[in-house]
Amino acid sequence: MADVQDASSNDHLITSDNPDHPANLIPSLCAKFWTLGWVTGTGGGCSIRDDDLVYIAPSGVQKELMKATDIYVLSLRLQNPPSPRTYLRSPPCGRPSQCTPLFLAAFTKRNAGCCIHTHSQWAVLVTLLLESDADSGRRKVFEINNIEQIKGFGKGFTKSGNLGYHDTLRIPVIENTAHEEDLTEFMEEAMEEFPDTYAVLVRRHGVYVWGDNVHKAKTMCESLDYLFQLAVEMRKLGIPWISDIPVVQPRRLLA
Amino acid sequence: MADVQDASSNDHLITSDNPDHPANLIPSLCAKFWTLGWVTGTGGGCSIRDDDLVYIAPSGVQKELMKATDIYVLSLRLQNPPSPRTYLRSPPCGRPSQCTPLFLAAFTKRNAGCCIHTHSQWAVLVTLLLESDADSGRRKVFEINNIEQIKGFGKGFTKSGNLGYHDTLRIPVIENTAHEEDLTEFMEEAMEEFPDTYAVLVRRHGVYVWGDNVHKAKTMCESLDYLFQLAVEMRKLGIPWISDIPVVQPRRLLA
Amino acid sequence: MADVQDASSNDHLITSDNPDHPANLIPSLCAKFWTLGWVTGTGGGCSIRDDDLVYIAPSGVQKELMKATDIYVLSLRLQNPPSPRTYLRSPPCGRPSQCTPLFLAAFTKRNAGCCIHTHSQWAVLVTLLLESDADSGRRKVFEINNIEQIKGFGKGFTKSGNLGYHDTLRIPVIENTAHEEDLTEFMEEAMEEFPDTYAVLVRRHGVYVWGDNVHKAKTMCESLDYLFQLAVEMRKLGIPWISDIPVVQPRRLLA
Amino acid sequence: MADVQDASSNDHLITSDNPDHPANLIPSLCAKFWTLGWVTGTGGGCSIRDDDLVYIAPSGVQKELMKATDIYVLSLRLQNPPSPRTYLRSPPCGRPSQCTPLFLAAFTKRNAGCCIHTHSQWAVLVTLLLESDADSGRRKVFEINNIEQIKGFGKGFTKSGNLGYHDTLRIPVIENTAHEEDLTEFMEEAMEEFPDTYAVLVRRHGVYVWGDNVHKAKTMCESLDYLFQLAVEMRKLGIPWISDIPVVQPRRLLA
Repeated sequence: MADVQDASSNDHLITSDNPDHPANLIPSLCAKFWTLGWVTGTGGGCSIRDDDLVYIAPSGVQKELMKATDIYVLSLRLQNPPSPRTYLRSPPCGRPSQCTPLFLAAFTKRNAGCCIHTHSQWAVLVTLLLESDADSGRRKVFEINNIEQIKGFGKGFTKSGNLGYHDTLRIPVIENTAHEEDLTEFMEEAMEEFPDTYAVLVRRHGVYVWGDNVHKAKTMCESLDYLFQLAVEMRKLGIPWISDIPVVQPRRLLA
Repeated sequence: MADVQDASSNDHLITSDNPDHPANLIPSLCAKFWTLGWVTGTGGGCSIRDDDLVYIAPSGVQKELMKATDIYVLSLRLQNPPSPRTYLRSPPCGRPSQCTPLFLAAFTKRNAGCCIHTHSQWAVLVTLLLESDADSGRRKVFEINNIEQIKGFGKGFTKSGNLGYHDTLRIPVIENTAHEEDLTEFMEEAMEEFPDTYAVLVRRHGVYVWGDNVHKAKTMCESLDYLFQLAVEMRKLGIPWISDIPVVQPRRLLA
Repeated sequence: MADVQDASSNDHLITSDNPDHPANLIPSLCAKFWTLGWVTGTGGGCSIRDDDLVYIAPSGVQKELMKATDIYVLSLRLQNPPSPRTYLRSPPCGRPSQCTPLFLAAFTKRNAGCCIHTHSQWAVLVTLLLESDADSGRRKVFEINNIEQIKGFGKGFTKSGNLGYHDTLRIPVIENTAHEEDLTEFMEEAMEEFPDTYAVLVRRHGVYVWGDNVHKAKTMCESLDYLFQLAVEMRKLGIPWISDIPVVQPRRLLA
Repeated sequence: MADVQDASSNDHLITSDNPDHPANLIPSLCAKFWTLGWVTGTGGGCSIRDDDLVYIAPSGVQKELMKATDIYVLSLRLQNPPSPRTYLRSPPCGRPSQCTPLFLAAFTKRNAGCCIHTHSQWAVLVTLLLESDADSGRRKVFEINNIEQIKGFGKGFTKSGNLGYHDTLRIPVIENTAHEEDLTEFMEEAMEEFPDTYAVLVRRHGVYVWGDNVHKAKTMCESLDYLFQLAVEMRKLGIPWISDIPVVQPRRLLA
C-alpha cells in the first residue's frame, strides 16, 4: 500500500539516505549559496540532472530552509512531443520555478548535469558597470584576463582541458526581461554566439552557470563570483580588467 | 500544581516543542539576523503575531543568545479600551522593547503577521545618502527600479501579486526621534502616505519591514537589505538608482 | 589526592561545567570574535573579572581554538604590595598576554567586569583617517553623533542610563607604542581625561572596550565596531561623522 | 589481510583518530580557509610536513568537502637521487597538486612545517596595485609599517623573535607563470633575495605563506591577509602604506 501511494506521488524519486542524491544535494547546496549571498530572499536557484531526471527547487522557498520534499522532478525527454514536459513529482504545495526553461536550456543544449542561478551582487554590479561604459559594444560581454582564477574554467563545450592564465575569459551578457522564462531564447542565442561559455550574465539580475556535473558547475560558479567581485574592486581602484602583460618564460626554456 | 503555576505565569504561551512556534522562531530568526549584521549590539528586533497573540523579544538582549523564555506576549486586542495593552506573559527579568508600538502599528494598520526591525548599515547608509543629496524632495523616499530583486516584494496591502522588474520600488524615509516609541506616529503617517509599502526606513537608524507572515516579512527584509547594499555600491561606482532602460520584448511577441 | 594535585595547580579555578564560567566564556567569546575579524592571527584578546579573580587568555593562541585550560587566573588585589601580582593559575605552556596591564587598568580604575581588545580593521582605519585629517586637534578623539546605534553606550562610569541619539559619542585615541604594556599609562591618562568613556582607540592597532560585566562590554564592543565600520563607509561616500540635524519633536509635544 | 591491503596502499599514513594528524588537519584547515575566501573554486591549498613525510591536498577538490582519504603523502628525502620523489600514498582518484614543488621549496629551503597557498582577493589586489604604481621598482615588494598586526610575523628564518611595530614588513612579489609549477624557481629566487620572508606574493594569483609549524603558518597567513585587506582599504581612503611616525617613548623612559 505504501508502495502504491509512493508510486502515485512518486515521492520515491526524492527519497534517499544518500547525501549526494540530487534531492538532498540541492537543499544542502542552496543553504551554502544562501550564506554566500547568492540566493537572498528566495532569489536564484539550482537544478541537477541525473540522466533523464531533472531535479528543481521550487519558486519562492527560503533557500537555506529547503528540504528534499520541496523538490520537483521532471523528465528531460519530451514524452509526447510536441506536448510540454510534465512533472513526474511535485511537492504538495509550491510553484515550479520560473528558472525551469533556463535550466532546461543548459541541459538540452549543452548536456549539462547541473545549472546554478545566482543573484550575486557582484554579478549584477559587473553588468551595471558594462552598461555604464561608453562603448556600447563592450556592454554585451564581460572580459577579464591574466588572473589565476580564470584557470578554474573549462575551455568549452566538447573541448577538453581548462583555460590558461593568459586566456581571456568571456561571459556574454543578455538583457533582462520582465518575465524570467522569457530569458530563455536570449540565453539560447548567447549559447549559440558563445558556444564555449559555461555561463550567461543577465543584466541587472544575476548569472546562470552550468557544468557537466555538480562539482564543475559549483566550482565554476564560485570562480566566476570571485572574478566578478575582483572586477568590481579593480574598478574602484582604477585597474583595468583586460591587461597586456608579458608572458613569463620559465628559466629552463630560456637560452 | 505545575499547571496552576504555569497558568499564573502564562509560561505555557512560550513553551512548545515546535521550532515554528513564535517563541522558538523569534530566537532562531534573531540568531540568523545577528550573523547578517542586522541586530548588532542588542539593536533591532523581531515580533510575530499569531492571531491575537503578539510575541516580542525584550530590549537589551544579545540577539544571538535569545531564548524562548525571554519572550513577551501580549494581546493585540485592547482588553479594556482605552486602557493600554497589558502583557499576558513577561520574562522574569528584562524590559519590554521600545519597538513595541511600531510592531503593533504594522499588526493593527496592515494586519501583518511579522515585523522585523534591523539596524543594517546598508539601510542607514541609504538614508544618509538621501539626506546628503541636494534635492530635498528626494530625501523622503528611497527609489530604485530595473533590478530583478525588486520582484521579491508584494505589490502592496490588499493587492495580490508582486512588483515587476520594471516597477519602481519606493520605501519612505522618516526622521529619527530621540525616543524610539515616538517614531510610531511618523511610521503610521508614512503608512498612510505610502499605503502599499511593506517597509519604512528610519533616518540614521535602520528599517522596519513587515509582511503577512514570517516567510514574507523575512524574505522581503532580505531582498530590501540586498537592494540597500547594492544601492550603496552603485553610488560608489557612479551608477544611478533609477534608470530608464527599454523593455525587452520576448521574440514571440515581435512581428 | 586528585584534590591535592588540583589545588597545587589550581586547575579548579578554570574547571566548571557552567558555560558562563569565565574560563569557559572567554574561549567561546574569542571564537565568536574570530569570526568577526576582531582577533585575527592571535591578535586581540579578552579578560573577565569575577570579584577578585581575573581570567585572561594567553598570548599567541589561535583565538578560535582556545580552551579553558589555556586560561590564566590572577588576583586583582595586590597580595604583598608593592610586590607585583602573581598568577594563581597558569597553563602548562604559554605566555601571559601583553594586554594584561591594560585589562587590569579597566578593572582597577573603572571597576570593569570585562575588557575586550580587538584588532578590528574598522577601528584601525578610523584611527588612520583621524591621523590623516588636517586638523591635528581632531586626531585625538573619534566623534560621531545622530546615529541610533550610539544609544548602545552607557553615559559613563558611575552614571546611570545610556547616551541619547543626539549625544556625541567620543572615544579617545592614544598613540601606539612599540611594546603593548607601555600603552598602559597612556590608556590610564585617556581614562582620566575622558572619565565617561568605556573604550580607548589605539592608533594603527585597535581598540580596548570594557563594561561592568561581560554583557555590557561585549554589546558595547559590537556597537562600537558597527560605528567604526559605518564611519569608514561614510567617509568613502563623503558624509561627515558629525552633523547638526534638527531634533524631531513628537507630535504630542507640539502645540 | 586487511593489514596487507592497507600496507600496499599505505592508507595507514592517512588514517588516524587524532584531529591534529596532518591528514585530518589539512581538511579541517581547508574548510576554514574556504569560509575565509582563500580557496574558492578549488583554488589554493595547504601542505603539512611531519619530519620526512609531506601531506598534500590533491588538485581540483572542493576545499570545504575534502576528506583525509583525498590526501597525498610523499617523502621529502629523495629516495634515489636524482630520481624524482614518488608518492608513498595516493588517493584512488585525483591528480597531484600543481603547488607541490612550491610547497616542497618551503620545506627544503626553509625547513618549514606547513605551507599555505591562498587565492585571497586582497593578496591579488595588492599585487595589482603595486603593478599599477608608477615606480616600477616598487612593484616587486609589498611594504607596510607601523601597524600592530605586523608583530604577528617572525623576524626571519633562523632568527628568533618577531617583528616590531615600527619594523617594515616586506613581502616579495613574483610574476605569475602560465603553469604553476614554473613558479618554483622564481619563488626560490625570492627566498634567496629576501631570506627572512615567510611569504611570497604571486602577481594576479595569490600568496604562499609558510612557517615552522601549522600554528605559525596559519597565524602568519591570517595576519598577512589582514594586512593585505587593510592595505587595499587604506588605498581607497588615500592613506599611504609606509609612514614616518615618531616613536612614542613610555613615560618611564623620559627624563
